[in-house]
Amino acid sequence: MTSPTPQRSLRLEVDGTPVVLDQMALPHAVREVYLTSLDAAATAIRDMQVRGAPLIGVTAAFGMALGLREDATDGGLVTARRILLATRPTAVNLQRAVEAVVRVVESLPPGERAEAAHREARRILEEEEGISRRIGEYGVALLREAWEAAGGRPLRILTHCNTGWLATVGPGTALAPVYLAHRAGIPLHVWVGETRPRNQGAALTAWELGQAGIPHAIHVDGAAGHLLQRGLVDLCIVGTDRTTATGDVANKVGTYPKALAARDNGVPFYVAAPTSSIDWTLDDGGAIPIEERDGREVTHLRGPTDDGREQEIRLAAAGSPAVNPAFDLTPARLVTALVTEYGVVPASREGLDRLKGHAA
Amino acid sequence: MTSPTPQRSLRLEVDGTPVVLDQMALPHAVREVYLTSLDAAATAIRDMQVRGAPLIGVTAAFGMALGLREDATDGGLVTARRILLATRPTAVNLQRAVEAVVRVVESLPPGERAEAAHREARRILEEEEGISRRIGEYGVALLREAWEAAGGRPLRILTHCNTGWLATVGPGTALAPVYLAHRAGIPLHVWVGETRPRNQGAALTAWELGQAGIPHAIHVDGAAGHLLQRGLVDLCIVGTDRTTATGDVANKVGTYPKALAARDNGVPFYVAAPTSSIDWTLDDGGAIPIEERDGREVTHLRGPTDDGREQEIRLAAAGSPAVNPAFDLTPARLVTALVTEYGVVPASREGLDRLKGHAA
Repeated sequence: MTSPTPQRSLRLEVDGTPVVLDQMALPHAVREVYLTSLDAAATAIRDMQVRGAPLIGVTAAFGMALGLREDATDGGLVTARRILLATRPTAVNLQRAVEAVVRVVESLPPGERAEAAHREARRILEEEEGISRRIGEYGVALLREAWEAAGGRPLRILTHCNTGWLATVGPGTALAPVYLAHRAGIPLHVWVGETRPRNQGAALTAWELGQAGIPHAIHVDGAAGHLLQRGLVDLCIVGTDRTTATGDVANKVGTYPKALAARDNGVPFYVAAPTSSIDWTLDDGGAIPIEERDGREVTHLRGPTDDGREQEIRLAAAGSPAVNPAFDLTPARLVTALVTEYGVVPASREGLDRLKGHAA
Repeated sequence: MTSPTPQRSLRLEVDGTPVVLDQMALPHAVREVYLTSLDAAATAIRDMQVRGAPLIGVTAAFGMALGLREDATDGGLVTARRILLATRPTAVNLQRAVEAVVRVVESLPPGERAEAAHREARRILEEEEGISRRIGEYGVALLREAWEAAGGRPLRILTHCNTGWLATVGPGTALAPVYLAHRAGIPLHVWVGETRPRNQGAALTAWELGQAGIPHAIHVDGAAGHLLQRGLVDLCIVGTDRTTATGDVANKVGTYPKALAARDNGVPFYVAAPTSSIDWTLDDGGAIPIEERDGREVTHLRGPTDDGREQEIRLAAAGSPAVNPAFDLTPARLVTALVTEYGVVPASREGLDRLKGHAA
């Protein structure tokens, strides 16, 4: 059941088989899933054993290779594409990765397709790893500067949700600079917002940091303001699901009040934003549609009892209604800077325009 | 087990026996506890079957009467006082209520003490009910004004934690205006913050509002900013645990970020503050000590499964550390006004000075 933790969300066996961590079992059990068939890859995406846009994309690309190993005909290609695109219909990285594989293999003879698809999947994997690492490298410079300004005591960082190696391939987005700073010997303490309702902070980020030996403590989302007010935070860094061309940031619900509290206390608030998250067609964050999820995620909660049985409990009276917006909008005026794989830029049209040469 | 809900936290039987709702069982079961002895009263306070400063005080006063019925000698008086003061050593209303009963009975002959104590307890009960009702009356004028300004559509109110009839004797503090407005026919919708980590909003406020037939929906604390940003909130109203002489407000953790989000969106943020919560000795909210509670309240959660078994589950990896500040500080500059039992005043030294003639 439990294996030594790999600290990466997807690895390849020597024979090329992709192996992912089952994120539905984390943090209570560390379990690997060997993706030996198209069906296994599709299931892993659909059942959220893998999550996070880059990881979903890479898994889908390997799923194409597995599908073509089972059936390399044009019919097999169409089937694999259809099955994988249907797993999580809204994830843009998934669609991009599947279509990239299709483009590479469709003109090849069937006998060469599986191998070419696997090669393309490895290319996407390396590309995503490179983006994550470069965000880490640009971000670590900010952390080093803040640490030196703090006079050498441990740097206290506040984050929200999960943006580490579980959400990506590579060290993460907002957590990538944290990992690189830790490896570089900068002493850190991370304040982990629990991130209701799905608790990705309490469950995943705290676990990741614990595995890496980085000092940290969970707090309820409402306590971030108190930590900032008491001078216990040197900087905040979070991820983004979608960034407008003017620097407005849609991210996991609860980000906006933390950005307000950071501003009210003069603490920098950074957003780690791969350029793939930038929506060049939008000027106004208010136009970003905010997903409304099932209220049951708010009123019910699943986890293990202390004797290890998985249980779901109810937090409210039976029938109490709940609303569950999954994201909120942090206006560009509250964002100190965006940390992208091409550098740190102001959260403004002028700042983002500097990236246009790099990003499509 | 389940009885029709009384909508008051403490009632008296015809023979004078105090009956409280077991708040540890709510909202999953409605269970009354008959306080027929000093021991039952002390247990109800100690085990948090009753909670909220005014209700704790009133319960302790009746506890004194019960103790004196069992033993009306000077020794019995000393014992009852000692036992009740030891139940929740920090609650100021408890101490005030117990000492009020002691002052009334100590010079009386033993034969008259139990009856006099019961009379004094009823006086305190009525006094607290009056405070709660007057806060409601002053607050409802604000709600009516906001409703009329909103052009007659339902008034949308955002609140935090539990400040209703369960937390007080009478209709509540921040919820008192809501109940009075509902009774006056003003259509309302209440956004209920779940109030992590103890979930008093999700568990108690939503249940109270449901019992009263007031439309409402729970949201995670981090979603309040989103609701405010989308124009879905007309006003916020919360309670307070301690207010400085300059209008800074210490209240349940998570209040400060909501006040920031209200200000950022131009929405009024009211605080219902009985004058007993004002600490005239403090000029600076930063001097209010903030209770640090056990991190286990953050990482573990208790509730019923859907088949009715009470279970505790873990939300984080075993051993993940957590911090748990119970309150935070909302600076006076973010508070639109304080709603007290003597009227609505600005959250400032000048505003609070107007109350000094009334409050000791």
